[in-house]
Amino acid sequence: MADKKEQHSGKDLVADWERLAKVFIRPEDDASRATLIKYMERILFGLHDFLKTHVGITEAKSLRELSESYMRTDINEDPEKKLANVITCLINETAPHAVNVASPYFVGHMTSAIPFFMVHLKTIVSALNQNPVKLETSKVVSIIEKQVLAKIHRMVYGLDEDFYLKHVQNTETTLGVFTEGGTTANLTALWMARNAKFAPKNGFRGIEHEGVPAAYRAHGVNRCVILASRLVHYSLRKAAGILGIGNDNVIPVDIDDACKMKMDAFEQTIEKIRSQSPGTCILAAVGIAGATETGTVDPLGEMADICFRHGIHFHVDAAWGGPTLLSKKYKHLLAGIEKSDSVTIDGHKQFYMPMSCGMVYFRNPYIMDVVAYHANYVNRRGSVDLGIKSLSGSRETNSLILDSALKIMGSNGYALLIDHGIETAHAFAEEIRRRPDFELVTAPLLNILTYRYCPEKTREDLAGAGREKRCRINSDLNKINRDLQRTQREAGNSFVSRTTLQSAPGCPESTVVLRAVIMNPMTDMKILREILDEQQSIAERLLSTGAD
Amino acid sequence: MADKKEQHSGKDLVADWERLAKVFIRPEDDASRATLIKYMERILFGLHDFLKTHVGITEAKSLRELSESYMRTDINEDPEKKLANVITCLINETAPHAVNVASPYFVGHMTSAIPFFMVHLKTIVSALNQNPVKLETSKVVSIIEKQVLAKIHRMVYGLDEDFYLKHVQNTETTLGVFTEGGTTANLTALWMARNAKFAPKNGFRGIEHEGVPAAYRAHGVNRCVILASRLVHYSLRKAAGILGIGNDNVIPVDIDDACKMKMDAFEQTIEKIRSQSPGTCILAAVGIAGATETGTVDPLGEMADICFRHGIHFHVDAAWGGPTLLSKKYKHLLAGIEKSDSVTIDGHKQFYMPMSCGMVYFRNPYIMDVVAYHANYVNRRGSVDLGIKSLSGSRETNSLILDSALKIMGSNGYALLIDHGIETAHAFAEEIRRRPDFELVTAPLLNILTYRYCPEKTREDLAGAGREKRCRINSDLNKINRDLQRTQREAGNSFVSRTTLQSAPGCPESTVVLRAVIMNPMTDMKILREILDEQQSIAERLLSTGAD
Repeated sequence: MADKKEQHSGKDLVADWERLAKVFIRPEDDASRATLIKYMERILFGLHDFLKTHVGITEAKSLRELSESYMRTDINEDPEKKLANVITCLINETAPHAVNVASPYFVGHMTSAIPFFMVHLKTIVSALNQNPVKLETSKVVSIIEKQVLAKIHRMVYGLDEDFYLKHVQNTETTLGVFTEGGTTANLTALWMARNAKFAPKNGFRGIEHEGVPAAYRAHGVNRCVILASRLVHYSLRKAAGILGIGNDNVIPVDIDDACKMKMDAFEQTIEKIRSQSPGTCILAAVGIAGATETGTVDPLGEMADICFRHGIHFHVDAAWGGPTLLSKKYKHLLAGIEKSDSVTIDGHKQFYMPMSCGMVYFRNPYIMDVVAYHANYVNRRGSVDLGIKSLSGSRETNSLILDSALKIMGSNGYALLIDHGIETAHAFAEEIRRRPDFELVTAPLLNILTYRYCPEKTREDLAGAGREKRCRINSDLNKINRDLQRTQREAGNSFVSRTTLQSAPGCPESTVVLRAVIMNPMTDMKILREILDEQQSIAERLLSTGAD
Repeated sequence: MADKKEQHSGKDLVADWERLAKVFIRPEDDASRATLIKYMERILFGLHDFLKTHVGITEAKSLRELSESYMRTDINEDPEKKLANVITCLINETAPHAVNVASPYFVGHMTSAIPFFMVHLKTIVSALNQNPVKLETSKVVSIIEKQVLAKIHRMVYGLDEDFYLKHVQNTETTLGVFTEGGTTANLTALWMARNAKFAPKNGFRGIEHEGVPAAYRAHGVNRCVILASRLVHYSLRKAAGILGIGNDNVIPVDIDDACKMKMDAFEQTIEKIRSQSPGTCILAAVGIAGATETGTVDPLGEMADICFRHGIHFHVDAAWGGPTLLSKKYKHLLAGIEKSDSVTIDGHKQFYMPMSCGMVYFRNPYIMDVVAYHANYVNRRGSVDLGIKSLSGSRETNSLILDSALKIMGSNGYALLIDHGIETAHAFAEEIRRRPDFELVTAPLLNILTYRYCPEKTREDLAGAGREKRCRINSDLNKINRDLQRTQREAGNSFVSRTTLQSAPGCPESTVVLRAVIMNPMTDMKILREILDEQQSIAERLLSTGAD
């Protein structure tokens, strides 16, 4: 019945006014409702059934071949497809060439499976279609957003009940803000740091109004720098570029063998700048809580103390690691984060939300006053118009998803995921250490580790080699690991990413490593052993072919 | 059966590992599947049934009262609610205090009803959960994104087939980029303009690397300005603030009685700067195609010619008006846009997509090279890693929604919506002109107009009044219109926004106006007449109460 109706409405779905109007009014009759529901069923389970049988980025069709099917650039004048056809095409033609990030064999990136209820929550957000840029297009949703921001702020900073009662629904203050992702969250944090540092002074109206050169002049500064570990995410450099500071002015600080920023190097860098470059302003220092490449955490408490002593804004990029704070067992790994001035946390990473959701939090609820923008038609002082203080204007209300997910999971539910990731990563590291043909390059602190194919014999050769020979061996290893990773990806059974570490512990040369991110709760040691087995046999095949 | 199962799974949904794992594996048995589908039904129709009976931002509960229910800031340790409860709460408790932006009586903002299939498309995007920052987490979806970017680029610039064949799937060039919204699209455009202007030169490595002060020095500049009409969106000022140019340096250019930028004033401003301030660099000029407050369009062709003559980057903010190009009948209103250097268009406005989707397009497919960022673990030169050249990192693949919507609607389907909005706005303007108690303040060019309650008698008084008396009358009018708009909003039957025009045609004082945005295809003259009737009776009631 529903099918018949669907067929009847034919290809001219919106070719005339009457039909167009229909897509704006959800149908009241049972048959049409049943059709819409059936579409949702196809989306929920049709996609799923496909994804279940399918892992990675497969190269059955090469990118070049795929591209050739997507060359048309004129927009069809008449409707080309009905919703039903679009869904069918997406399931049958698009999904097979998309990437099944939900597979437990996909352990290469920070994008993974999400709980199925997240898809329902996202659907609610789009059905409500609120816009928190202003209260007039969101109302209670802006209030819920302020509440969930306060909850996460409390998770990070743990200030007292009075503080939160004062600020949770305060229309004049801001505990944090939702952003598109970690990149714009980091940008927002440095934007605040920049504006707070170059505040109005002696007739100077502030950097936001007068720009960077005027600000430097007014404050007697000729250069600004940002200090961060060598492992800092590239979005910090991008932020410095956008903000007019210059990305060359993100100064890398050395890391130790555990991939943490060296505190003596950090202090020396600060002191050297202070003593030798009096015109240089240290705008901010960035600590990492869950480095993208290694999952490691900088000594946040020590960094905070040093920054406090020197009056430097201390930002923590916890885009990855933030939700570790929900685990009673492992929250100590982020100790010191509560002393920071600002913190980035991503929703689409370890809060397991759908793409995309970033957040940034500030210890000082007044700091965002330095970026208040008002427009006559939209937002007015002292209102709950969340667009007044944010990088973005109109945006999706992903806060509703986070708020609901916290209710459904509880911190204990999230803790199960966090604990599983960390403990599985440690077990995986043990397994790598046990295998003679693999070398663990960076051990997991959280749930990310790097390793490489490097047979025991080669490791012995490396240990005894001089500089030149070591370089040659490493170069061969880099090649085999690069080929290995690509071959495994193309085979489509599993996916581990690769990166190039500039200074891996005990290895001064660039080192190509395999990188595993363990966040899917379905990823277990059986699967990880299979992945290693596959890598070993690929490597052996590559080496034997190479020897031909 | 499904209900029973749901009850059985109890409130401890994710309190242990086994239950947690279940939410990551979509169920295979029919009963559980039926439950998940039932939830979607509630979302699609439960929400809808509520929204149908409910219009605006109602003040049945005041904001203060509402806030009091959202004060708790601790995160529940144990799961608090099942998905079913969350959905029920969202329908019964949240939706009644959200804003029914989908009502045809909600004509106050640029957020409106969306076709129901958009909700399905958003659901697909979140079920696939691809991340176009890199090919390894998106594959074909990045290719589809490049195609739809080329389609919209062609809609704007209409270059020849060879151009599009060369660039549509070119991994080295960029026709445009998806952003969170219009604000970040405008920011991206000015970021490109800034970096292109302050390119590497004589040992200077470029503004992105060395920052604004070094760039000014290297290029012999002491100030940068951006020229834009007084009606320009505040995001352009925000962009100038973020980019280190300083938002004071967005120079407003006067508008004529039709709210278009005055071309003589524009040229004079340029010439004055060129002759009197040799150290000032005109970074960009911004033309508006659909001003937020008035819906008007600047003389884009003339602006483009002037900018071309002076070597100024010409950006068009078509966040609102862009899709007008799909209407054969009205595309001429945006003539000249094809001569611009960059264009912002929003997906969540007149493409009727769910929150939120912005886009920015560039005539020069190489311009984004000035912001390429690479990271070892993620994106590599010459790949389809869309994150290399964009403001954001990880993000949602809203391109899939736009691509599908274009197939479902065709340009003709969209044209029906565009034409309806423009023609209804013109009919509404006629109706306002006919009514003795209302004054049309800015006539519609597209589908936005402003007007105010201003009885015929008052208009006559204004016409004959001296400056002081006119100010007093206008001040009274401002008050009555402000009260009128608030009272109507609080009554919750309909919603028209208000803004304050700084220089309305023929009225030098600040003028509070009512603002109508006609984009919902269900909004017709019957509804608009009802809205005017309601406003009239509110105004009369307010005046009679005021007289007491």
